Amino acid sequence: MESLSVGEIELILDTAESLKEISTRPIKKVPTLRGKTVVHFFYEPSTRTRTSFEIAAKRLSADTVSISASTSSMVKGETLVDTAKNLEAMNPDAIVLRHSAAGAPHMLARLVDASVINAGDGMHAHPTQALLDMLTVREKKGRLSGLRVAIIGDIAHSRVARSNTVAFVKMGAHVILAGPPTMIPKGIETLGAPVTYHTQEALKGADVIIVLRIQKERQQAFLFPSEREYAQCYGLTTESLVGAKDDVLILHPGPMNRGVEIAPEVADGPYSVILEQVANGVALRMAIFYLLLGGAR
Amino acid sequence: MESLSVGEIELILDTAESLKEISTRPIKKVPTLRGKTVVHFFYEPSTRTRTSFEIAAKRLSADTVSISASTSSMVKGETLVDTAKNLEAMNPDAIVLRHSAAGAPHMLARLVDASVINAGDGMHAHPTQALLDMLTVREKKGRLSGLRVAIIGDIAHSRVARSNTVAFVKMGAHVILAGPPTMIPKGIETLGAPVTYHTQEALKGADVIIVLRIQKERQQAFLFPSEREYAQCYGLTTESLVGAKDDVLILHPGPMNRGVEIAPEVADGPYSVILEQVANGVALRMAIFYLLLGGAR
Amino acid sequence: MESLSVGEIELILDTAESLKEISTRPIKKVPTLRGKTVVHFFYEPSTRTRTSFEIAAKRLSADTVSISASTSSMVKGETLVDTAKNLEAMNPDAIVLRHSAAGAPHMLARLVDASVINAGDGMHAHPTQALLDMLTVREKKGRLSGLRVAIIGDIAHSRVARSNTVAFVKMGAHVILAGPPTMIPKGIETLGAPVTYHTQEALKGADVIIVLRIQKERQQAFLFPSEREYAQCYGLTTESLVGAKDDVLILHPGPMNRGVEIAPEVADGPYSVILEQVANGVALRMAIFYLLLGGAR
Repeated sequence: MESLSVGEIELILDTAESLKEISTRPIKKVPTLRGKTVVHFFYEPSTRTRTSFEIAAKRLSADTVSISASTSSMVKGETLVDTAKNLEAMNPDAIVLRHSAAGAPHMLARLVDASVINAGDGMHAHPTQALLDMLTVREKKGRLSGLRVAIIGDIAHSRVARSNTVAFVKMGAHVILAGPPTMIPKGIETLGAPVTYHTQEALKGADVIIVLRIQKERQQAFLFPSEREYAQCYGLTTESLVGAKDDVLILHPGPMNRGVEIAPEVADGPYSVILEQVANGVALRMAIFYLLLGGAR
Repeated sequence: MESLSVGEIELILDTAESLKEISTRPIKKVPTLRGKTVVHFFYEPSTRTRTSFEIAAKRLSADTVSISASTSSMVKGETLVDTAKNLEAMNPDAIVLRHSAAGAPHMLARLVDASVINAGDGMHAHPTQALLDMLTVREKKGRLSGLRVAIIGDIAHSRVARSNTVAFVKMGAHVILAGPPTMIPKGIETLGAPVTYHTQEALKGADVIIVLRIQKERQQAFLFPSEREYAQCYGLTTESLVGAKDDVLILHPGPMNRGVEIAPEVADGPYSVILEQVANGVALRMAIFYLLLGGAR
Repeated sequence: MESLSVGEIELILDTAESLKEISTRPIKKVPTLRGKTVVHFFYEPSTRTRTSFEIAAKRLSADTVSISASTSSMVKGETLVDTAKNLEAMNPDAIVLRHSAAGAPHMLARLVDASVINAGDGMHAHPTQALLDMLTVREKKGRLSGLRVAIIGDIAHSRVARSNTVAFVKMGAHVILAGPPTMIPKGIETLGAPVTYHTQEALKGADVIIVLRIQKERQQAFLFPSEREYAQCYGLTTESLVGAKDDVLILHPGPMNRGVEIAPEVADGPYSVILEQVANGVALRMAIFYLLLGGAR
């Protein structure tokens, strides 16, 4: 998200908006990317993101090949660089990479001619998530600029938080970050978003709330005492919504821990746009493929 | 199978019969379901069923996406309901679900607009197996009504037994169930099929024998003493076939434990239609896809 | 490779050469194998080989279904024979098999009507690797006959070594095998290639060097003392290349252990054609599919 200009982001969102309709047709498919090869390379398991990318590629008629860590040469000790060069030699048009190491897609992109799409790298970035979140908010609010966006939860370990902060700030929104002190990294304010340890402060006047997934292994690491206490202090409930705008939107990147970071009645309630996020995810990824591989190329 | 009418079952079997020929053409593909998205969601491993569904979908030109439990968000603790709603948001046309919990496909079908196809749920049902078994028998015998059908083995833990009993009884066949007392559940007769603990009694005059797979973990649970004893009492051998009709058909849902529930010479013998079952499986699943997603929809 | 004639090998290589250009088009796809079903059945994990076959099949418009050991009925104890017959009943046009048992593809081919392609069986053979290696060498040298080919490493456990020896010898090349005494099987000379324990002797005057992957589990089996010592005696370095021809080609089947059997500066150096091998792998497999499934069939 750092390297995209405001204009480029708007182009991506506009393209996604125009491609969204394809997924509602009886024949959900256009021939745009026929004969293009997309490799989905997932070093970490992920249902929703991989499925979203795969469906997006197929609705544009691209051929897809899927590689997961458990079946990959990583088992045999090959480096990512060698795996990348090998893939490259097979002339793919795009490589979608999910990797546990921050910067892996960046490195890959320097090594190969194919377009590289970051599908989440370590705790660093998850740009297509930020873009689909913006698409969802813009669709509902008609704009991004000037909105008050609260991001709640484990800021330190969340690539979603990082990409969304950078993206929404760039588009002129006012982002505020909230979470337990153990989950707020030092210096995060330099991304352009103030920090608070009190959810209520972040939610006051919020147009948009992005709830982050709590990862249970953090509890073992003593970053929070128990799921129950986390839910009481940082979980989004009907009561904690009181200070937010009347037409607030609630987003969550999924998968949700119902009853922990988000109460079921909020997840399924009238302000939730969580399933719209998923639908927009397919459209957004179609836009990415289209802009990188389609048309003049 | 409970909810299908006799007429609906006949429509499915007729459709399968007419689609079967496609798989023998040099170009095994028709454009009928072009632009339809089929998600195969298998929480339990299965080669034959998943492959059969995938090939069926592809021969009708549908796009397929495959999700297995090991790569799914289940790892991250998401509920089936949330996974389902997420998939739904990506606008699939059909979701093929294999799940260890009885009723999972039923629940899913209430939650999503997409067609849900049960590819086996716990010990409950495996309707496409029952339908392909009926297709195979009808093809060979010209009818289902009035046939004497023996189902042999672990009735208690078999979704194949349950679906086949309901289906064949509905179509007017006389079904008889046989197995060790530890593997016959109380009250199973209410499905309309008498029970015996003696294989010979079930086989007497049989037109059709459906041999069930014995699951080795049952031995550890003391439901049968050893594979060897099981084979002696309930394994289908050339000798045990003596009482059956001269043109008896032998079916097995696979994968077989040769030498346990079925002797190799029977599995590969002249009465076996086990491989016809597999071929009919593709045709039957093509029919299901065609009827749910094709034509007027 | 034993059963192919010189003329058949030349036909395969010529076909691959003419199909190679498809992968460099903007639309990397021809309709040649539309409506054909290719099953990729991998009992051993493999990124590069499976991906190469899958991309090859898709660029010819075949439908592909992928089965890996972890999701297969092997888990449930079915024999390869039964799995094979079951697959066959689904009318695939080709089955690509990677298996840990030598001879498994050979057995499969006798059982099924579909074309069976050996994607590596145990320590026996890896014919498409040998063919793509020959394609790469012929492309660079203009011929195979009369070339001096050194194969270096763990000859005993390498299906790549075995297939390449047979293939290059058949095409009139002079093959020499080199490796530690613990890794040279008795009687290997009967394949038509002399053996030496000294790398330098094998490299003297070499036109082509095929470096084999060292498998780390061999160290535990005391076939070599340590990676470091192996690298010193048998690892290919800039220094060890001194005796080879000035225009020597260096091949490696991948994945590489950099710093063990091959030094990074050699792997990435001017004589290396390792990435050309990968690109040729796709073309070669397209040729195999085309010749087995295309045209008159």
